Amino acid sequence: MTRMILFSKMHGLGNDYVVIDESAQECIPEDKKPEFVREVCTRGFSVGADGVIFVQPASGEGDIRFRIFNADGSEAEMCGNGIRCFSKFVYDNAIVRKRRLEVETLAGIKTVELEVEDGAVVSSRVDMGTATFKTDQIPMDVEEYEFIDRFLPVEGEDIKLTALSVGNPHAIIFVDDAEGVDLDRLGPAIENHPLFPERINVHFVEVVSPSEIIMVTWERGAGPTMACGTGATASVIAGVKLEKLDDSVLVHLPGGELKIDVYRDGTELGAYMEGDAVMVFDGILLRDP
Amino acid sequence: MTRMILFSKMHGLGNDYVVIDESAQECIPEDKKPEFVREVCTRGFSVGADGVIFVQPASGEGDIRFRIFNADGSEAEMCGNGIRCFSKFVYDNAIVRKRRLEVETLAGIKTVELEVEDGAVVSSRVDMGTATFKTDQIPMDVEEYEFIDRFLPVEGEDIKLTALSVGNPHAIIFVDDAEGVDLDRLGPAIENHPLFPERINVHFVEVVSPSEIIMVTWERGAGPTMACGTGATASVIAGVKLEKLDDSVLVHLPGGELKIDVYRDGTELGAYMEGDAVMVFDGILLRDP
Repeated sequence: MTRMILFSKMHGLGNDYVVIDESAQECIPEDKKPEFVREVCTRGFSVGADGVIFVQPASGEGDIRFRIFNADGSEAEMCGNGIRCFSKFVYDNAIVRKRRLEVETLAGIKTVELEVEDGAVVSSRVDMGTATFKTDQIPMDVEEYEFIDRFLPVEGEDIKLTALSVGNPHAIIFVDDAEGVDLDRLGPAIENHPLFPERINVHFVEVVSPSEIIMVTWERGAGPTMACGTGATASVIAGVKLEKLDDSVLVHLPGGELKIDVYRDGTELGAYMEGDAVMVFDGILLRDP
Repeated sequence: MTRMILFSKMHGLGNDYVVIDESAQECIPEDKKPEFVREVCTRGFSVGADGVIFVQPASGEGDIRFRIFNADGSEAEMCGNGIRCFSKFVYDNAIVRKRRLEVETLAGIKTVELEVEDGAVVSSRVDMGTATFKTDQIPMDVEEYEFIDRFLPVEGEDIKLTALSVGNPHAIIFVDDAEGVDLDRLGPAIENHPLFPERINVHFVEVVSPSEIIMVTWERGAGPTMACGTGATASVIAGVKLEKLDDSVLVHLPGGELKIDVYRDGTELGAYMEGDAVMVFDGILLRDP
Protein backbone atom coordinates (compact mmCIF):
# COMPACT_ATOMS: atom_id res chain seq x y z
CA MET A 1 0.00 0.00 0.00
CA THR A 2 1.19 3.49 -0.79
CA ARG A 3 2.02 5.64 2.24
CA MET A 4 1.34 9.37 2.40
CA ILE A 5 3.97 11.62 3.96
CA LEU A 6 2.93 15.17 4.81
CA PHE A 7 5.58 17.84 4.40
CA SER A 8 6.08 21.56 3.96
CA LYS A 9 8.47 23.16 1.52
CA MET A 10 10.17 26.30 2.84
CA HIS A 11 13.13 28.44 1.96
CA GLY A 12 15.51 30.90 3.59
CA LEU A 13 17.18 33.07 0.93
CA GLY A 14 16.56 30.38 -1.69
CA ASN A 15 18.14 27.65 0.42
CA ASP A 16 15.23 25.24 0.30
CA TYR A 17 14.08 22.51 2.64
CA VAL A 18 11.50 19.81 2.96
CA VAL A 19 10.21 20.09 6.54
CA ILE A 20 8.66 17.05 8.21
CA ASP A 21 6.89 17.16 11.56
CA GLU A 22 7.98 14.33 13.83
CA SER A 23 7.05 16.19 17.03
CA ALA A 24 4.17 13.83 17.77
CA GLN A 25 5.41 10.66 16.08
CA GLU A 26 8.31 9.45 13.98
CA CYS A 27 7.54 9.62 10.27
CA ILE A 28 10.73 8.24 8.72
CA PRO A 29 12.56 5.57 10.79
CA GLU A 30 16.00 6.75 11.93
CA ASP A 31 17.96 4.22 9.86
CA LYS A 32 15.98 5.07 6.72
CA LYS A 33 16.46 8.84 6.98
CA PRO A 34 19.66 9.17 4.87
CA GLU A 35 18.18 7.18 1.98
CA PHE A 36 14.85 9.03 2.22
CA VAL A 37 16.65 12.40 2.22
CA ARG A 38 18.75 11.56 -0.83
CA GLU A 39 15.65 10.44 -2.71
CA VAL A 40 13.35 13.32 -1.77
CA CYS A 41 16.02 16.00 -2.43
CA THR A 42 16.65 14.85 -6.01
CA ARG A 43 15.44 17.63 -8.28
CA GLY A 44 13.41 16.54 -11.30
CA PHE A 45 12.61 13.07 -9.96
CA SER A 46 11.25 13.99 -6.54
CA VAL A 47 10.42 17.09 -4.46
CA GLY A 48 13.89 18.58 -4.90
CA ALA A 49 15.57 20.48 -2.05
CA ASP A 50 18.90 21.41 -0.47
CA GLY A 51 18.03 19.31 2.56
CA VAL A 52 15.39 17.84 4.85
CA ILE A 53 14.51 19.19 8.31
CA PHE A 54 12.83 17.01 10.92
CA VAL A 55 10.95 18.60 13.83
CA GLN A 56 11.43 16.31 16.84
CA PRO A 57 10.43 16.47 20.51
CA ALA A 58 12.94 18.04 22.91
CA SER A 59 15.03 15.54 24.79
CA GLY A 60 15.57 17.77 27.81
CA GLU A 61 16.52 21.42 28.22
CA GLY A 62 15.12 22.88 25.00
CA ASP A 63 11.58 23.52 23.73
CA ILE A 64 11.97 21.45 20.57
CA ARG A 65 14.61 19.52 18.63
CA PHE A 66 16.05 20.43 15.21
CA ARG A 67 17.50 17.77 12.91
CA ILE A 68 18.80 18.68 9.49
CA PHE A 69 20.14 16.49 6.68
CA ASN A 70 21.98 17.63 3.56
CA ALA A 71 20.86 16.52 0.09
CA ASP A 72 23.55 13.80 0.09
CA GLY A 73 22.00 12.16 3.16
CA SER A 74 24.63 13.32 5.66
CA GLU A 75 23.41 14.97 8.86
CA ALA A 76 24.51 18.57 9.55
CA GLU A 77 25.17 19.94 13.02
CA MET A 78 23.35 23.20 12.37
CA CYS A 79 22.17 25.46 9.54
CA GLY A 80 21.28 29.12 9.91
CA ASN A 81 18.72 29.27 7.07
CA GLY A 82 17.34 25.92 8.10
CA ILE A 83 16.76 26.94 11.71
CA ARG A 84 14.81 30.04 10.58
CA CYS A 85 12.56 27.83 8.42
CA PHE A 86 12.28 25.35 11.29
CA SER A 87 11.35 28.08 13.82
CA LYS A 88 8.66 29.57 11.57
CA PHE A 89 7.25 26.08 10.96
CA VAL A 90 7.19 25.30 14.70
CA TYR A 91 5.52 28.62 15.63
CA ASP A 92 3.08 28.96 12.70
CA ASN A 93 1.87 25.37 13.14
CA ALA A 94 1.52 25.92 16.91
CA ILE A 95 3.86 23.05 17.79
CA VAL A 96 5.50 25.43 20.27
CA ARG A 97 3.87 28.86 20.53
CA LYS A 98 6.72 30.88 22.06
CA ARG A 99 8.38 33.97 20.62
CA ARG A 100 11.64 32.94 22.19
CA LEU A 101 12.42 29.36 21.24
CA GLU A 102 15.14 27.24 22.79
CA VAL A 103 16.09 24.85 20.00
CA GLU A 104 18.12 21.68 20.55
CA THR A 105 20.62 21.10 17.73
CA LEU A 106 23.66 18.87 17.26
CA ALA A 107 25.66 22.07 17.84
CA GLY A 108 23.97 22.69 21.21
CA ILE A 109 20.98 24.78 22.27
CA LYS A 110 20.22 27.74 19.97
CA THR A 111 17.98 30.61 21.05
CA VAL A 112 15.69 31.99 18.31
CA GLU A 113 13.75 35.24 18.76
CA LEU A 114 10.72 35.44 16.47
CA GLU A 115 9.09 38.55 15.07
CA VAL A 116 5.40 37.79 14.59
CA GLU A 117 2.72 39.58 12.57
CA ASP A 118 -0.90 38.38 12.28
CA GLY A 119 -0.01 35.15 14.07
CA ALA A 120 2.80 34.20 11.69
CA VAL A 121 6.57 34.61 11.90
CA VAL A 122 7.92 37.27 9.51
CA SER A 123 11.55 37.36 10.59
CA SER A 124 13.77 35.72 13.15
CA ARG A 125 16.98 36.41 14.98
CA VAL A 126 19.13 33.52 16.01
CA ASP A 127 21.88 33.58 18.59
CA MET A 128 24.39 31.55 16.66
CA GLY A 129 26.59 31.22 19.73
CA THR A 130 30.33 31.73 19.82
CA ALA A 131 32.93 30.66 17.33
CA THR A 132 36.11 28.76 17.94
CA PHE A 133 39.28 29.10 15.89
CA LYS A 134 40.98 26.12 17.58
CA THR A 135 42.05 23.72 14.86
CA ASP A 136 41.40 20.61 16.95
CA GLN A 137 37.78 21.67 17.35
CA ILE A 138 37.09 22.60 13.70
CA PRO A 139 38.54 19.89 13.11
CA MET A 140 41.65 20.53 11.03
CA ASP A 141 44.68 18.20 10.84
CA VAL A 142 47.49 20.72 11.35
CA GLU A 143 50.03 21.36 14.10
CA GLU A 144 49.04 25.02 14.41
CA TYR A 145 46.73 25.90 17.33
CA GLU A 146 44.71 28.20 15.05
CA PHE A 147 44.63 28.64 11.25
CA ILE A 148 43.91 32.34 10.73
CA ASP A 149 44.81 34.17 7.50
CA ARG A 150 47.28 31.43 6.54
CA PHE A 151 48.13 29.81 3.23
CA LEU A 152 46.73 26.41 2.29
CA PRO A 153 48.06 24.64 -0.83
CA VAL A 154 45.07 23.87 -3.08
CA GLU A 155 45.48 22.44 -6.60
CA GLY A 156 48.91 23.98 -7.07
CA GLU A 157 48.06 27.43 -5.71
CA ASP A 158 48.35 28.86 -2.22
CA ILE A 159 44.99 30.05 -0.94
CA LYS A 160 44.92 32.31 2.10
CA LEU A 161 42.13 31.21 4.40
CA THR A 162 40.77 31.36 7.91
CA ALA A 163 39.23 28.25 9.43
CA LEU A 164 36.70 28.36 12.25
CA SER A 165 33.73 26.52 13.68
CA VAL A 166 30.37 27.99 14.70
CA GLY A 167 29.07 24.51 15.49
CA ASN A 168 29.99 23.36 11.99
CA PRO A 169 33.27 23.97 10.16
CA HIS A 170 33.93 26.88 7.77
CA ALA A 171 36.81 28.04 5.60
CA ILE A 172 36.71 31.78 4.82
CA ILE A 173 38.65 33.20 1.87
CA PHE A 174 38.65 36.99 1.42
CA VAL A 175 38.77 37.94 -2.28
CA ASP A 176 38.50 41.06 -4.43
CA ASP A 177 35.62 39.72 -6.54
CA ALA A 178 33.41 37.04 -4.94
CA GLU A 179 31.24 36.49 -8.00
CA GLY A 180 34.30 36.00 -10.23
CA VAL A 181 35.59 32.99 -8.22
CA ASP A 182 35.78 29.59 -9.95
CA LEU A 183 33.54 28.01 -7.33
CA ASP A 184 33.03 24.67 -9.09
CA ARG A 185 36.77 24.04 -9.11
CA LEU A 186 37.93 25.54 -5.78
CA GLY A 187 34.84 24.65 -3.73
CA PRO A 188 35.15 20.85 -3.86
CA ALA A 189 38.98 21.02 -3.73
CA ILE A 190 38.87 22.86 -0.39
CA GLU A 191 35.78 20.98 0.93
CA ASN A 192 37.57 17.66 0.48
CA HIS A 193 41.10 18.83 1.32
CA PRO A 194 42.91 16.16 3.39
CA LEU A 195 43.56 18.69 6.20
CA PHE A 196 39.78 18.79 6.90
CA PRO A 197 38.94 15.27 8.11
CA GLU A 198 35.19 16.07 8.38
CA ARG A 199 35.24 18.20 5.20
CA ILE A 200 34.35 21.90 5.39
CA ASN A 201 31.99 24.62 4.11
CA VAL A 202 33.80 27.06 1.81
CA HIS A 203 33.03 30.79 1.51
CA PHE A 204 34.54 33.46 -0.74
CA VAL A 205 33.99 36.90 0.78
CA GLU A 206 34.32 40.34 -0.82
CA VAL A 207 34.44 43.34 1.56
CA VAL A 208 32.37 46.19 0.07
CA SER A 209 32.76 48.33 3.20
CA PRO A 210 33.37 47.54 6.90
CA SER A 211 29.59 47.08 7.27
CA GLU A 212 28.79 45.25 4.02
CA ILE A 213 30.06 42.08 2.33
CA ILE A 214 29.22 39.94 -0.69
CA MET A 215 29.73 36.19 -0.35
CA VAL A 216 29.42 33.03 -2.42
CA THR A 217 29.30 29.58 -0.86
CA TRP A 218 30.22 26.00 -1.61
CA GLU A 219 28.30 24.02 1.01
CA ARG A 220 29.64 20.75 2.36
CA GLY A 221 27.56 17.92 0.93
CA ALA A 222 25.40 20.28 -1.14
CA GLY A 223 27.67 22.20 -3.55
CA PRO A 224 26.92 25.79 -4.56
CA THR A 225 24.00 27.18 -2.55
CA MET A 226 22.03 30.41 -2.66
CA ALA A 227 22.82 31.14 0.96
CA CYS A 228 24.39 29.65 4.05
CA GLY A 229 23.42 31.24 7.36
CA THR A 230 26.16 29.69 9.49
CA GLY A 231 28.59 30.64 6.72
CA ALA A 232 27.49 34.29 6.81
CA THR A 233 27.98 34.24 10.59
CA ALA A 234 31.42 32.63 10.32
CA SER A 235 32.47 35.05 7.54
CA VAL A 236 31.58 38.14 9.58
CA ILE A 237 33.25 36.77 12.72
CA ALA A 238 36.39 36.01 10.68
CA GLY A 239 36.26 39.55 9.23
CA VAL A 240 35.93 41.09 12.71
CA LYS A 241 38.81 38.91 13.99
CA LEU A 242 40.98 40.14 11.10
CA GLU A 243 39.82 43.75 11.68
CA LYS A 244 38.37 43.99 8.19
CA LEU A 245 34.77 44.43 9.41
CA ASP A 246 32.68 46.28 11.99
CA ASP A 247 30.44 44.40 14.43
CA SER A 248 27.19 44.92 12.49
CA VAL A 249 27.33 43.75 8.88
CA LEU A 250 24.83 43.39 6.03
CA VAL A 251 25.64 40.25 4.07
CA HIS A 252 24.63 39.92 0.41
CA LEU A 253 24.26 36.30 -0.63
CA PRO A 254 23.07 35.05 -4.04
CA GLY A 255 19.61 34.34 -2.53
CA GLY A 256 19.10 37.54 -0.52
CA GLU A 257 20.35 39.35 2.56
CA LEU A 258 21.16 38.61 6.18
CA LYS A 259 22.15 40.87 9.02
CA ILE A 260 24.91 39.65 11.34
CA ASP A 261 25.66 41.32 14.69
CA VAL A 262 28.85 40.25 16.44
CA TYR A 263 29.16 40.25 20.23
CA ARG A 264 31.96 39.44 22.71
CA ASP A 265 31.67 36.64 25.23
CA GLY A 266 34.85 36.85 27.28
CA THR A 267 37.66 36.44 24.75
CA GLU A 268 35.37 34.75 22.26
CA LEU A 269 33.32 36.21 19.41
CA GLY A 270 29.66 35.27 18.96
CA ALA A 271 26.91 36.55 16.65
CA TYR A 272 23.22 37.04 16.08
CA MET A 273 21.85 36.32 12.61
CA GLU A 274 18.65 37.96 11.41
CA GLY A 275 16.65 37.21 8.26
CA ASP A 276 13.39 35.87 6.94
CA ALA A 277 12.05 32.43 6.03
CA VAL A 278 9.30 31.70 3.52
CA MET A 279 6.60 29.03 3.56
CA VAL A 280 6.13 27.95 -0.06
CA PHE A 281 3.70 25.02 -0.05
CA ASP A 282 2.37 22.03 1.85
CA GLY A 283 2.65 18.68 0.13
CA ILE A 284 1.60 15.05 0.34
CA LEU A 285 4.29 12.71 -0.89
CA LEU A 286 3.19 9.31 -2.15
CA ARG A 287 5.61 6.55 -1.33
CA ASP A 288 5.80 2.82 -1.52
CA PRO A 289 6.44 1.37 1.93
CA MET B 1 -6.24 37.00 1.90
CA THR B 2 -3.93 34.18 0.92
CA ARG B 3 -5.23 31.94 -1.86
CA MET B 4 -4.58 28.20 -1.99
CA ILE B 5 -3.72 26.62 -5.33
CA LEU B 6 -3.90 22.83 -5.58
CA PHE B 7 -1.36 21.17 -7.82
CA SER B 8 0.37 17.89 -8.53
CA LYS B 9 4.06 17.48 -9.22
CA MET B 10 4.87 14.84 -11.82
CA HIS B 11 7.78 13.83 -13.96
CA GLY B 12 8.51 11.98 -17.17
CA LEU B 13 12.15 10.82 -17.23
CA GLY B 14 13.09 13.57 -14.78
CA ASN B 15 11.47 16.30 -16.87
CA ASP B 16 9.28 17.70 -14.13
CA TYR B 17 6.00 19.58 -14.18
CA VAL B 18 3.56 21.31 -11.93
CA VAL B 19 0.12 20.13 -13.10
CA ILE B 20 -2.94 22.25 -12.41
CA ASP B 21 -6.49 21.12 -13.04
CA GLU B 22 -8.54 23.78 -14.82
CA SER B 23 -11.01 21.27 -16.27
CA ALA B 24 -13.86 22.52 -14.10
CA GLN B 25 -12.80 26.14 -13.59
CA GLU B 26 -9.94 28.46 -14.41
CA CYS B 27 -7.37 28.63 -11.60
CA ILE B 28 -4.85 31.12 -12.99
CA PRO B 29 -6.27 33.87 -15.26
CA GLU B 30 -4.97 33.62 -18.83
CA ASP B 31 -3.03 36.90 -18.75
CA LYS B 32 -1.37 35.98 -15.42
CA LYS B 33 -0.19 32.53 -16.56
CA PRO B 34 3.30 33.50 -17.86
CA GLU B 35 4.19 35.36 -14.65
CA PHE B 36 2.73 32.59 -12.47
CA VAL B 37 4.71 29.95 -14.40
CA ARG B 38 8.00 31.84 -14.10
CA GLU B 39 7.48 32.24 -10.38
CA VAL B 40 6.37 28.69 -9.57
CA CYS B 41 9.11 27.06 -11.70
CA THR B 42 11.94 28.88 -9.88
CA ARG B 43 13.92 26.24 -7.99
CA GLY B 44 14.88 27.13 -4.42
CA PHE B 45 12.36 29.96 -4.09
CA SER B 46 9.19 28.18 -5.20
CA VAL B 47 8.04 24.68 -6.24
CA GLY B 48 10.67 24.39 -8.95
CA ALA B 49 9.90 22.65 -12.26
CA ASP B 50 10.73 22.53 -15.96
CA GLY B 51 7.25 23.81 -16.75
CA VAL B 52 3.58 24.04 -15.83
CA ILE B 53 0.79 21.98 -17.40
CA PHE B 54 -2.83 23.14 -17.30
CA VAL B 55 -5.67 20.65 -17.81
CA GLN B 56 -8.46 22.49 -19.63
CA PRO B 57 -11.85 21.49 -21.07
CA ALA B 58 -11.91 20.40 -24.72
CA SER B 59 -13.02 23.12 -27.10
CA GLY B 60 -14.43 20.72 -29.69
CA GLU B 61 -13.15 17.52 -31.24
CA GLY B 62 -10.94 16.19 -28.43
CA ASP B 63 -11.66 14.73 -25.00
CA ILE B 64 -9.56 17.26 -23.08
CA ARG B 65 -7.19 20.16 -23.71
CA PHE B 66 -3.44 20.24 -22.93
CA ARG B 67 -1.64 23.54 -22.28
CA ILE B 68 2.02 23.58 -21.41
CA PHE B 69 4.31 26.47 -20.44
CA ASN B 70 8.11 26.42 -20.22
CA ALA B 71 9.89 27.65 -17.08
CA ASP B 72 10.54 31.02 -18.78
CA GLY B 73 6.78 31.63 -19.14
CA SER B 74 6.59 30.95 -22.87
CA GLU B 75 3.89 28.55 -24.08
CA ALA B 76 5.03 25.39 -25.91
CA GLU B 77 3.06 23.79 -28.72
CA MET B 78 3.56 20.26 -27.41
CA CYS B 79 5.83 18.20 -25.14
CA GLY B 80 6.15 14.44 -25.22
CA ASN B 81 7.03 13.96 -21.54
CA GLY B 82 4.48 16.55 -20.55
CA ILE B 83 1.63 14.86 -22.41
CA ARG B 84 2.37 11.53 -20.69
CA CYS B 85 2.21 13.26 -17.27
CA PHE B 86 -0.95 15.08 -18.38
CA SER B 87 -2.62 11.85 -19.57
CA LYS B 88 -1.85 9.98 -16.35
CA PHE B 89 -3.18 12.93 -14.34
CA VAL B 90 -6.38 13.08 -16.42
CA TYR B 91 -7.02 9.33 -16.18
CA ASP B 92 -5.95 8.70 -12.56
CA ASN B 93 -8.02 11.65 -11.31
CA ALA B 94 -11.01 10.46 -13.37
CA ILE B 95 -11.29 13.73 -15.29
CA VAL B 96 -11.64 11.61 -18.45
CA ARG B 97 -11.70 7.85 -17.84
CA LYS B 98 -10.78 6.59 -21.32
CA ARG B 99 -7.82 4.38 -22.22
CA ARG B 100 -7.59 6.10 -25.59
CA LEU B 101 -7.50 9.85 -25.07
CA GLU B 102 -7.89 12.44 -27.82
CA VAL B 103 -5.89 15.38 -26.51
CA GLU B 104 -6.17 18.89 -27.95
CA THR B 105 -2.77 20.62 -28.14
CA LEU B 106 -1.43 23.70 -29.91
CA ALA B 107 0.16 21.20 -32.31
CA GLY B 108 -3.23 19.61 -33.10
CA ILE B 109 -5.06 16.58 -31.70
CA LYS B 110 -2.78 13.92 -30.21
CA THR B 111 -3.97 10.38 -29.52
CA VAL B 112 -2.64 8.81 -26.31
CA GLU B 113 -3.08 5.10 -25.54
CA LEU B 114 -2.87 4.33 -21.82
CA GLU B 115 -1.72 1.13 -20.19
CA VAL B 116 -3.57 0.80 -16.89
CA GLU B 117 -2.89 -1.40 -13.84
CA ASP B 118 -4.96 -1.30 -10.64
CA GLY B 119 -6.86 1.74 -11.89
CA ALA B 120 -3.74 3.84 -12.55
CA VAL B 121 -1.77 4.55 -15.71
CA VAL B 122 1.65 2.80 -15.75
CA SER B 123 2.77 3.67 -19.27
CA SER B 124 1.47 5.49 -22.29
CA ARG B 125 1.97 5.53 -26.00
CA VAL B 126 1.48 8.75 -27.86
CA ASP B 127 0.96 9.14 -31.58
CA MET B 128 3.27 12.08 -32.08
CA GLY B 129 1.93 12.62 -35.61
CA THR B 130 4.05 13.25 -38.67
CA ALA B 131 7.10 15.41 -39.03
CA THR B 132 7.80 18.06 -41.59
CA PHE B 133 11.23 18.99 -42.91
CA LYS B 134 9.92 22.06 -44.77
CA THR B 135 11.94 25.05 -43.59
CA ASP B 136 9.02 27.49 -43.84
CA GLN B 137 7.05 25.33 -41.42
CA ILE B 138 9.83 24.77 -38.85
CA PRO B 139 10.27 27.88 -39.22
CA MET B 140 13.78 28.54 -40.48
CA ASP B 141 14.89 31.64 -42.39
CA VAL B 142 16.76 30.03 -45.28
CA GLU B 143 16.15 29.79 -49.02
CA GLU B 144 16.46 26.00 -49.03
CA TYR B 145 13.17 24.03 -49.10
CA GLU B 146 14.57 21.60 -46.52
CA PHE B 147 17.63 21.71 -44.25
CA ILE B 148 18.75 18.08 -43.94
CA ASP B 149 22.31 17.13 -42.98
CA ARG B 150 23.60 20.58 -43.92
CA PHE B 151 26.19 22.86 -42.36
CA LEU B 152 25.16 25.78 -40.14
CA PRO B 153 27.81 28.30 -39.05
CA VAL B 154 27.74 28.46 -35.22
CA GLU B 155 30.29 30.45 -33.20
CA GLY B 156 32.99 30.09 -35.84
CA GLU B 157 32.49 26.39 -36.54
CA ASP B 158 30.32 24.60 -39.11
CA ILE B 159 27.83 22.29 -37.44
CA LYS B 160 26.07 19.68 -39.55
CA LEU B 161 22.42 19.54 -38.58
CA THR B 162 18.97 18.49 -39.63
CA ALA B 163 16.02 20.73 -38.85
CA LEU B 164 12.46 19.45 -38.59
CA SER B 165 9.17 20.07 -36.84
CA VAL B 166 7.00 17.52 -35.04
CA GLY B 167 4.62 20.29 -33.95
CA ASN B 168 7.54 22.19 -32.42
CA PRO B 169 10.95 22.85 -33.96
CA HIS B 170 14.05 20.66 -33.49
CA ALA B 171 17.66 20.75 -34.63
CA ILE B 172 19.33 17.32 -34.66
CA ILE B 173 23.11 16.99 -34.64
CA PHE B 174 24.59 13.49 -34.97
CA VAL B 175 27.82 13.17 -32.98
CA ASP B 176 30.30 10.45 -31.97
CA ASP B 177 29.99 11.17 -28.23
CA ALA B 178 26.75 12.78 -27.05
CA GLU B 179 27.81 13.11 -23.42
CA GLY B 180 31.07 14.83 -24.41
CA VAL B 181 29.30 17.74 -26.15
CA ASP B 182 29.78 21.27 -24.71
CA LEU B 183 26.03 21.69 -24.28
CA ASP B 184 26.14 24.95 -22.31
CA ARG B 185 28.02 26.66 -25.13
CA LEU B 186 26.47 25.12 -28.26
CA GLY B 187 22.91 24.74 -26.94
CA PRO B 188 22.06 28.43 -26.50
CA ALA B 189 24.10 29.40 -29.60
CA ILE B 190 21.94 27.15 -31.82
CA GLU B 191 18.68 27.79 -29.90
CA ASN B 192 19.02 31.53 -30.52
CA HIS B 193 20.62 31.36 -33.97
CA PRO B 194 19.19 34.12 -36.21
CA LEU B 195 18.08 31.53 -38.79
CA PHE B 196 15.51 30.19 -36.28
CA PRO B 197 13.06 33.08 -35.78
CA GLU B 198 11.04 31.15 -33.15
CA ARG B 199 14.20 29.62 -31.63
CA ILE B 200 14.67 25.83 -31.62
CA ASN B 201 15.20 22.76 -29.41
CA VAL B 202 18.70 21.33 -29.84
CA HIS B 203 19.62 17.61 -29.64
CA PHE B 204 22.99 15.89 -29.89
CA VAL B 205 22.53 12.26 -30.91
CA GLU B 206 24.97 9.35 -30.76
CA VAL B 207 24.06 6.22 -32.74
CA VAL B 208 24.94 3.12 -30.67
CA SER B 209 23.32 0.75 -33.18
CA PRO B 210 20.52 1.16 -35.75
CA SER B 211 18.02 0.40 -32.96
CA GLU B 212 19.61 2.35 -30.09
CA ILE B 213 20.70 5.96 -29.58
CA ILE B 214 21.99 8.18 -26.76
CA MET B 215 20.87 11.82 -26.78
CA VAL B 216 21.42 15.02 -24.79
CA THR B 217 19.10 17.99 -25.10
CA TRP B 218 19.13 21.76 -24.81
CA GLU B 219 15.45 22.67 -24.58
CA ARG B 220 14.14 25.96 -25.92
CA GLY B 221 13.29 28.20 -22.98
CA ALA B 222 14.46 25.63 -20.41
CA GLY B 223 18.15 24.86 -21.04
CA PRO B 224 19.59 21.41 -20.43
CA THR B 225 16.85 18.92 -19.57
CA MET B 226 16.83 15.31 -18.46
CA ALA B 227 14.62 14.33 -21.36
CA CYS B 228 12.61 15.74 -24.24
CA GLY B 229 9.94 13.46 -25.70
CA THR B 230 9.30 15.43 -28.90
CA GLY B 231 13.07 15.67 -29.29
CA ALA B 232 13.49 11.89 -29.03
CA THR B 233 10.77 11.53 -31.67
CA ALA B 234 12.39 14.12 -33.96
CA SER B 235 15.84 12.56 -33.48
CA VAL B 236 14.68 9.08 -34.49
CA ILE B 237 12.69 10.42 -37.47
CA ALA B 238 15.78 12.37 -38.60
CA GLY B 239 17.89 9.22 -38.18
CA VAL B 240 15.44 7.16 -40.24
CA LYS B 241 15.35 9.88 -42.93
CA LEU B 242 19.16 9.80 -43.10
CA GLU B 243 19.14 5.96 -43.10
CA LYS B 244 21.16 5.83 -39.90
CA LEU B 245 18.38 4.13 -37.89
CA ASP B 246 15.75 1.38 -38.07
CA ASP B 247 12.07 2.12 -37.49
CA SER B 248 12.00 0.95 -33.86
CA VAL B 249 14.56 2.62 -31.63
CA LEU B 250 15.34 2.62 -27.89
CA VAL B 251 16.39 6.12 -26.87
CA HIS B 252 18.63 6.67 -23.83
CA LEU B 253 18.19 10.13 -22.35
CA PRO B 254 19.85 11.44 -19.18
CA GLY B 255 16.57 10.87 -17.28
CA GLY B 256 15.65 7.41 -18.56
CA GLU B 257 14.44 5.60 -21.67
CA LEU B 258 11.80 6.02 -24.35
CA LYS B 259 10.78 3.74 -27.20
CA ILE B 260 10.11 5.40 -30.55
CA ASP B 261 8.38 3.55 -33.41
CA VAL B 262 8.42 5.27 -36.79
CA TYR B 263 5.60 4.80 -39.32
CA ARG B 264 4.92 6.04 -42.87
CA ASP B 265 1.94 8.23 -43.72
CA GLY B 266 2.12 8.71 -47.48
CA THR B 267 5.53 10.28 -48.10
CA GLU B 268 5.77 11.56 -44.53
CA LEU B 269 7.30 9.98 -41.46
CA GLY B 270 5.41 9.84 -38.18
CA ALA B 271 6.12 8.14 -34.84
CA TYR B 272 4.70 6.65 -31.66
CA MET B 273 6.48 7.44 -28.40
CA GLU B 274 6.16 5.10 -25.42
CA GLY B 275 7.32 5.67 -21.84
CA ASP B 276 6.20 6.17 -18.29
CA ALA B 277 5.17 9.12 -16.15
CA VAL B 278 5.46 9.37 -12.38
CA MET B 279 3.19 11.06 -9.87
CA VAL B 280 5.48 12.50 -7.15
CA PHE B 281 3.28 14.53 -4.80
CA ASP B 282 0.19 16.66 -4.42
CA GLY B 283 0.68 20.16 -3.11
CA ILE B 284 -1.11 23.23 -1.84
CA LEU B 285 0.60 26.44 -2.87
CA LEU B 286 -0.02 29.51 -0.72
CA ARG B 287 -0.21 32.71 -2.68
CA ASP B 288 -1.07 36.32 -2.14
CA PRO B 289 -3.87 37.38 -4.50
